[in-house]
Amino acid sequence: MLIRPARKDDAAAIWSIIGPVVRAGETYALPRGMSEQDALAYWMAADRETFVAEDEGRIHGTYYLRANQFGGGDHVANCGYMTDAAAAGRGVARAMCGHSLAHARSRGFKAMQFNFVVSTNERAVRLWQSLGFEIAGRLLKAFRHPVKGEVDALVMFRAI
Amino acid sequence: MLIRPARKDDAAAIWSIIGPVVRAGETYALPRGMSEQDALAYWMAADRETFVAEDEGRIHGTYYLRANQFGGGDHVANCGYMTDAAAAGRGVARAMCGHSLAHARSRGFKAMQFNFVVSTNERAVRLWQSLGFEIAGRLLKAFRHPVKGEVDALVMFRAI
Repeated sequence: MLIRPARKDDAAAIWSIIGPVVRAGETYALPRGMSEQDALAYWMAADRETFVAEDEGRIHGTYYLRANQFGGGDHVANCGYMTDAAAAGRGVARAMCGHSLAHARSRGFKAMQFNFVVSTNERAVRLWQSLGFEIAGRLLKAFRHPVKGEVDALVMFRAI
Repeated sequence: MLIRPARKDDAAAIWSIIGPVVRAGETYALPRGMSEQDALAYWMAADRETFVAEDEGRIHGTYYLRANQFGGGDHVANCGYMTDAAAAGRGVARAMCGHSLAHARSRGFKAMQFNFVVSTNERAVRLWQSLGFEIAGRLLKAFRHPVKGEVDALVMFRAI
């Protein structure tokens, strides 16, 4: 699997991955009705680097990396990852997270923070823990899950 | 003290409060060299409501209120508060926070979150605790304090 910077002409493939995640509204705090244009503008915004995970010419996942804060907090990175549902279980998210940690380190970041991991996304929580992230905080009922109702969100953090 | 929505012609007074806080770089994760224009664009951005605390025609403090997340997380508010150093100790921040909690409630928010309270800002931490906020998380060495070096930042949270 090749993880490389996203290009403008990846937009359709990226939307095919992030669109269903946004529409489901179960794991990201983004408006479920967000337009393709707005979602891509968010995912590929100028304040972040966006990558895709490609295998045999097909894009299976995408992530972004940015500084989580400005000024005195800009040594902590933040990422968001999404994987094509059809490629679940193949280690795409794990590979992207490993890539992001190495890339963040190369950019001089000293830590990585996930601001809002939905607690019911147990696969993600376990994956991030296996990659060295700790639960730094719990936000009570901070997410309205479309099926499960009000659930907690987690702040996860690790030094890099 | 009157707490009212900021108007465009409050910009100079707002900058006189937020400018020194930004330049000091001790309590907010904003670029210390941020221009007046950029700082005001941030503080009075379209995605938030900005207020000023006025007493006898003079502005002593300012705060903003916004949704902390989109979509399924948009029932949690986020605020930032800054007080004129010359008015410290007069309860301006406490009054603004109380106003913000009531205003957030009136807007339908169910909780309020501060994402990044610098741990060495002990007066603020105690004030928010006295107003019902709990420390929901600790971000290790997430802030580079210009005098104290790498210090922790706190995530603070309360239902409203």
